[in-house]
Amino acid sequence: MKILPESIARLVEHFDRLPGIGPKHATRLALYLLHQKEYASHFAHDITTALSETKLCARCQNVSNADICALCSNPNRDQKIICVVAHVQDIEPIEQTGKFSGTYHVLHGVLDPIEGITPDDLTIRTLIDRTQKRKIDEIILALDVTSAGEATTLYLMNQLNPFVPKITRLARGIPMGSSIEYTDEVTLTSALENRR
Amino acid sequence: MKILPESIARLVEHFDRLPGIGPKHATRLALYLLHQKEYASHFAHDITTALSETKLCARCQNVSNADICALCSNPNRDQKIICVVAHVQDIEPIEQTGKFSGTYHVLHGVLDPIEGITPDDLTIRTLIDRTQKRKIDEIILALDVTSAGEATTLYLMNQLNPFVPKITRLARGIPMGSSIEYTDEVTLTSALENRR
Repeated sequence: MKILPESIARLVEHFDRLPGIGPKHATRLALYLLHQKEYASHFAHDITTALSETKLCARCQNVSNADICALCSNPNRDQKIICVVAHVQDIEPIEQTGKFSGTYHVLHGVLDPIEGITPDDLTIRTLIDRTQKRKIDEIILALDVTSAGEATTLYLMNQLNPFVPKITRLARGIPMGSSIEYTDEVTLTSALENRR
Repeated sequence: MKILPESIARLVEHFDRLPGIGPKHATRLALYLLHQKEYASHFAHDITTALSETKLCARCQNVSNADICALCSNPNRDQKIICVVAHVQDIEPIEQTGKFSGTYHVLHGVLDPIEGITPDDLTIRTLIDRTQKRKIDEIILALDVTSAGEATTLYLMNQLNPFVPKITRLARGIPMGSSIEYTDEVTLTSALENRR
């Protein structure tokens, strides 16, 4: 027999579907919610609000309240420099550096043949359209240094090459706090080649 | 400036408040939800449904659709044997053994002076009332073997002693898959003392 009432079991299933949450954790979260009734009803309400209030920025595909997001509509940001990121959450760490005043483009994923993610599943078409609508001086490819990220970087370099005079990617090297001894060969090769 | 729209930032805060979810994970979950619109609206709807449909069983304090839960109202379960657990999610693993046909009592926590959890915060009063309303043959204390769990077990033994003829606790010993070499002293002492 089922231990949990049907309505709670459904909630557990929802939590279980979220990335990085296993079945035991999902049960714990569903029961936690039910014990915090006020919080839970705000939670439900705010999911609905966020769904109805947010869309993707028509220009950079970042999540936004308006047709054009706050970053793209900020007159202090350089529209001629585009930093391409895989996910919305990659924007914040770059903003935190305070060293970038251009605009972004969110791909919403990376190419991944195994998962069946093709160029059409990403916002690559919109990015190419952007480079044709207005003159772009530089595109910075800021994707994860994983095999899928690297493949996407190479694909984009080929696709964007005809339209953009300068295409760069983030430097590879030894991250802060790392020791030479434990740095892998590929990273160390990049760090040597790019020494300054 | 804020990177995420206000409504998404609120959703991130809600996720961040859940146990075992850090701020980065919370951001990822909120954005995941927004990309799965249909799933997200079911999620919101089902939180509301679960909140309105579930209550605590008047007898055992388990979550339930009805005033008396499915376990307590099952005529095949022995009402004279009560297994006391700290949390709702502790019931399932015990049911999985197929070796227990009594009923449960959910404390909804354990005594914890540091967190300010006193007997009044748990369902101990209701448990004592149960032992007085109908004759109970045995109470099994099935709490975590942690300092807070142990303190609660001892407290309950003292409180229940006048009303219940037999109070037991789960055996301590070497868990399946463990090696003697890495078993701690306290566990090994219990395993030796309870050898059979």
